[in-house]
Amino acid sequence: MSEASIPKQSEDFAEWYNQLVIKAELADYAPVRGCMVVRPYGWSLWENIQASLDERFKETGHQNAAFPLFIPQSFMEKEQSHVEGFSPELAVVTIGGGQKLEEPLVVRPTSETIIGHMYAKWIKSYRDLPVLINQWNNVVRWEMRTKLFIRTMEFYWQEGHTAHATSEEAQAETLQMLDIYADFAKDKAAIPVVRGRKSEKEKFAGAVRTYSIEAMMRDTRALQSATSHNLGQNFARAFDIQYLDDQNELQYVWTTSWGLSTRFIGAIIMAHGDDKGLILPPKLAPYQVVLVPIYKNDQEKSQVMEVVQQIKRKLADFRLTVDEREGVRPGFKFNDWEMRGVPIRVEIGPKDVENRTVAVARRDIPGREGKSFVSQDGLESTIADLLEEIHTSMYQRALTFREEHTYQPDDYGSFKEVVKSGWADVWWCGETDCELEIKADTRATSRNIPIDQPGGSGVCVHCGKPAHERAIFSRAY
Amino acid sequence: MSEASIPKQSEDFAEWYNQLVIKAELADYAPVRGCMVVRPYGWSLWENIQASLDERFKETGHQNAAFPLFIPQSFMEKEQSHVEGFSPELAVVTIGGGQKLEEPLVVRPTSETIIGHMYAKWIKSYRDLPVLINQWNNVVRWEMRTKLFIRTMEFYWQEGHTAHATSEEAQAETLQMLDIYADFAKDKAAIPVVRGRKSEKEKFAGAVRTYSIEAMMRDTRALQSATSHNLGQNFARAFDIQYLDDQNELQYVWTTSWGLSTRFIGAIIMAHGDDKGLILPPKLAPYQVVLVPIYKNDQEKSQVMEVVQQIKRKLADFRLTVDEREGVRPGFKFNDWEMRGVPIRVEIGPKDVENRTVAVARRDIPGREGKSFVSQDGLESTIADLLEEIHTSMYQRALTFREEHTYQPDDYGSFKEVVKSGWADVWWCGETDCELEIKADTRATSRNIPIDQPGGSGVCVHCGKPAHERAIFSRAY
Repeated sequence: MSEASIPKQSEDFAEWYNQLVIKAELADYAPVRGCMVVRPYGWSLWENIQASLDERFKETGHQNAAFPLFIPQSFMEKEQSHVEGFSPELAVVTIGGGQKLEEPLVVRPTSETIIGHMYAKWIKSYRDLPVLINQWNNVVRWEMRTKLFIRTMEFYWQEGHTAHATSEEAQAETLQMLDIYADFAKDKAAIPVVRGRKSEKEKFAGAVRTYSIEAMMRDTRALQSATSHNLGQNFARAFDIQYLDDQNELQYVWTTSWGLSTRFIGAIIMAHGDDKGLILPPKLAPYQVVLVPIYKNDQEKSQVMEVVQQIKRKLADFRLTVDEREGVRPGFKFNDWEMRGVPIRVEIGPKDVENRTVAVARRDIPGREGKSFVSQDGLESTIADLLEEIHTSMYQRALTFREEHTYQPDDYGSFKEVVKSGWADVWWCGETDCELEIKADTRATSRNIPIDQPGGSGVCVHCGKPAHERAIFSRAY
Repeated sequence: MSEASIPKQSEDFAEWYNQLVIKAELADYAPVRGCMVVRPYGWSLWENIQASLDERFKETGHQNAAFPLFIPQSFMEKEQSHVEGFSPELAVVTIGGGQKLEEPLVVRPTSETIIGHMYAKWIKSYRDLPVLINQWNNVVRWEMRTKLFIRTMEFYWQEGHTAHATSEEAQAETLQMLDIYADFAKDKAAIPVVRGRKSEKEKFAGAVRTYSIEAMMRDTRALQSATSHNLGQNFARAFDIQYLDDQNELQYVWTTSWGLSTRFIGAIIMAHGDDKGLILPPKLAPYQVVLVPIYKNDQEKSQVMEVVQQIKRKLADFRLTVDEREGVRPGFKFNDWEMRGVPIRVEIGPKDVENRTVAVARRDIPGREGKSFVSQDGLESTIADLLEEIHTSMYQRALTFREEHTYQPDDYGSFKEVVKSGWADVWWCGETDCELEIKADTRATSRNIPIDQPGGSGVCVHCGKPAHERAIFSRAY
């Protein structure tokens, strides 16, 4: 493990990110360009994200399944806008078992097509609906400009796919899953997000409506953190997914899909981190507490380690690690765990043994201000309360940052200024041509059209046409 | 859901299996030949297998990570016997993002090579050892003759990969993981297994020694249910994984790998099932208990459903489902859940409401013999005890079956007879030529050379050469 020396956020945000991901051992570059290796520390964070989302999915009646990695190339072509969106990004298997294949196989970039094919087989009657299935898997999109977690050729995600009897049910499901993502972001990741509808230009290839949650990173750029799509009957018609309704008439189903990926790890890193490194949200952090024993000689060591063992047992309900590395100074360990973002550091030295105290340092408040000396008695509840407090305080810090960097410019001149270092919340006409012009001028794109609208209407900040909704524009990952 | 009509095991074991997998909705055929879709009921079983193994892996110090799907073709060629073993089975990506690739990418059939490459980068010093990493993922092997769960082109598994400072440590790890698999099979899946070493012919391509657990199916064929490989320094040398020891000298590491796949679901189906369908082990079953309400009219329904709700709350610690389907006779429901293998069925009718009883039916003992009427009071512990008893009884049934179909023939004539419908436990020379001749004669292969040996020595059952170990031979999946 190397000394934590990463560039400052303020000096080079991109390099801060790239080096931090490597140095904190979250991920590494794979030998194949654009692919990543997720290392145990990063994967543990993902496992905690998975467990938390999976619980919410199951509570709302979804079940997991597994659909194949390989999709016949012809399937991709059945839904017109889907093929247009995805064909430039496909990895294609042309050789299997030493033979050239008659029909090439696409490595799934997403699974609407193959799942549509299976649903057509499984769904016969209204009694079979709704079908509420999710899968945790890996997908591949051929990306040229990659960034660990944020944009990689292979990534990990969950993709939910549901089929319903009515359009209303499909829309309700789409919004329910959007809300689950938003709640998860807030309650588990301490990230405030804006829920909203994507513009026509930015919606999913094959969707009727796409919704997203958008989060602000510490460089003020936006990161689309999850999406939920109402697919209407587009895939039902392309794959002939029909059911007999209670009047015995054949109807097409209405489908949705929704996903959150390892990209969300990028959101956690960039929404919370500081110059010292990661600041991980307590409810998702691989380790919530690190114990650092401090001693100068063998006698001190044996006294200290005895108390360390007691405290370890006392804190058994938390995700905890003890840094027992020999030949490494405590100061090095402090920096190392700060870089890795562990929410609470507990230091135990000979004086603490004597006084039955420990030093507790909060990662989210660096330096002396975040450090206190507390009794070993009742340490469980001290830690539990502190983790709660850290969560709340991290959420508040991110929210305040977003509010301080969100502007309501009334004219295009101010718009162009504010999107250089913030979000613009503006009246917008919603048209693709207008969006393309804004992007060409400013590199900002429409993030989404928030579900929470103030009401009323105005004129489009760029083209001056009548506008009935406000949209968030910003530069984005 | 269709009426449960599957062929009898005794009449056509293969068709019994194939139809049961489909009808119980464990899995389905994918549009790409040889691939499968694991449906929610099958995936839930896999999730329970995963959770149980994952806990054991983590208790023994392993961490999960994720290595890429794509491996440069040149990597596969670095370890001589590895490439020979795997090249006929590879799926190869030759096109990415619309362009022909300069170096084709292999879809991983297993990950020793790419993990070896990363370990070479990460491991510098003896302080970095051991490295104990596992990953849960999908792999692809081009198979021509496929069977759902047992042999599919894409399958799901975990692959553990560890690196150690000494040969002894690597061997200890290899055997530790073998024991974990054997314990898991016994304690969770109620399957007795034989732990042993694979013959030279049957060992993993690239291993120094391969160990396996072997289970007997109800048709007496063997199913290799998990493997653990001591890879010696083969991959360390091929990928240059070296560390500085405490004398500051460069040494190659010693590696292991070990895996258990969705094939194990096939083992559960075939080790326990009967003519009525699945019999799922209580500790892994997606549902441990199914409640079937019985009523003739709305008044009875409301009385019965009230008690169903009470019982559901009482049994909240179990994985439970209530079959509330309307317009379906109770008899149909009983057959349906028997086919799906739910360990305990609880029936509640109007008389039970009156008497504060329920009828409890064991899946492992069909008919009246397995059915009893018990009080609603203390139902939690009745069910808990019964699940334990079912587990023990399933294990015992499988063990007895194996013992009854395992023979110790002393001459090759009897050997040829017994392997038609059982296992042969025999003195064997261990030579590949001898094994090939046996296979050509009998279709039986060496399953493994059990770790538990009686001692002593004898002569090879086939070739008559001196033999120092006994081996299990049988026909296998």
